[in-house]
Amino acid sequence: MSVQGTIVEKNAAYASSFTQGGLPLPPSKHLTIGKSTYAVLLSLNSLTCHGAKVTCMDARIEPAGQLGIELGEAHIIRNAGGSAKEALRSVVISQRLLGTREIALFHHTDCGMLTFTTEQLKGIVKDSAPGDAAVATEVDKLDFLEFPDLEESVKDDVRFLQDHPLVLEETKITGWTYDVHTGKITQVA
Amino acid sequence: MSVQGTIVEKNAAYASSFTQGGLPLPPSKHLTIGKSTYAVLLSLNSLTCHGAKVTCMDARIEPAGQLGIELGEAHIIRNAGGSAKEALRSVVISQRLLGTREIALFHHTDCGMLTFTTEQLKGIVKDSAPGDAAVATEVDKLDFLEFPDLEESVKDDVRFLQDHPLVLEETKITGWTYDVHTGKITQVA
Repeated sequence: MSVQGTIVEKNAAYASSFTQGGLPLPPSKHLTIGKSTYAVLLSLNSLTCHGAKVTCMDARIEPAGQLGIELGEAHIIRNAGGSAKEALRSVVISQRLLGTREIALFHHTDCGMLTFTTEQLKGIVKDSAPGDAAVATEVDKLDFLEFPDLEESVKDDVRFLQDHPLVLEETKITGWTYDVHTGKITQVA
Repeated sequence: MSVQGTIVEKNAAYASSFTQGGLPLPPSKHLTIGKSTYAVLLSLNSLTCHGAKVTCMDARIEPAGQLGIELGEAHIIRNAGGSAKEALRSVVISQRLLGTREIALFHHTDCGMLTFTTEQLKGIVKDSAPGDAAVATEVDKLDFLEFPDLEESVKDDVRFLQDHPLVLEETKITGWTYDVHTGKITQVA
C-alpha cells in the first residue's frame, strides 16, 4: 500500500473515535511532559501553564509520548537539530499571540547534526547536479545549523533565546539533552 | 509542581520501561500513519519507505498518534503554520543525508496563521516595547508566513516544494488538510 493510502486508512480509524473536537486554539493549562525528546524547544506559560514546544525531526523522537504531553497542552516545534534560531518565528507567534511564557530546549544524543558540516553538505548537493546554477545558488543561501558538541549546542541555543530582543524577558528558559539509547533526559542549562 | 519537575518525573517513568534504545538514525521502513495533523510536511522515502514529516506547532496536533507513526519511522518537522519554506533546511538534510523521498504537507482548520497578518504582529511586538530599537529592528527582519486561505496555503506550499531546485525531482509530494474538530484529513494537492 502507498504511504498516502496508509495515511488515509489510519486516519479514518482515528477520526471514527475522535472526541476532542472542542479543544481551543491556545494550549491548555496542563503540560504533563513524560517521555523524552531530541532537539525540543518547549515553551510554556508559567502563569497559566499554556504550553508550546519545539523539537527535532529525528525519527526516534516522539514528544507527546516521551514527555507525556496530551492533545491541546503544548505547542510543539520541530526541525533538524531543534534549532532555536530557526524556531524564532514560531516562538514569537506562540508568545505574543497565544500566551506561552516558558521554553525548554531539547537536543539529543546520536544526532545527525553532529555528523556533517554545512560545507560538506553543500558539496554533496552541488555534486549531485553538476553545472546546475540554480542548485548551487540555492544551497549557498542555506546554513544547515549543524553542531559539533551536543551539550554546547543546547547551551548556545538557550543563550540565543535568553539574549534575543524578541523573546519576552520574563520567559523561563531551560535546556535539556535526551539520550536516544536510554530514553532519559538531563538538564544542562 | 514546576513544569521542569513534571518533565523530570514523567521522563523517569518513561525511561524506566524504555526498550527502543537500538533504533538507528535513519527512519525505519515502516511509516504507518494513522491519526491526523495540522500543518504537517511528511517526507518519506518511496523506495525504502524511510520517512520524514513536518507539522505545525499547534497544541491540538499529535502526529505520532493522529497519523499512526511509530518511534523510528519518520522525520517530523513542525513549525507555526507548517511552513514548507521554513522547513527547507530540514527537508534537504532529510533527503540528502538520510534518504527520504516522499513529502506530505498538512495544514489544519482553525489555524492561528489564518487570524493575523505579519504587519499586525509586528505592530503588537513594537507596541510592547516602545522606543526599543533592537526589538523594532529584529521584528522587521521576520516574515511570519501567515496565510488567508487554508486550502490555498497547502497548494502554495506543495508548489513551492515541487518547484524548488533543492528538493529532489523524484520526490512524491502531496498536500492535506486536517480538521481539528472531526480529526479527519483530506487530500487537496
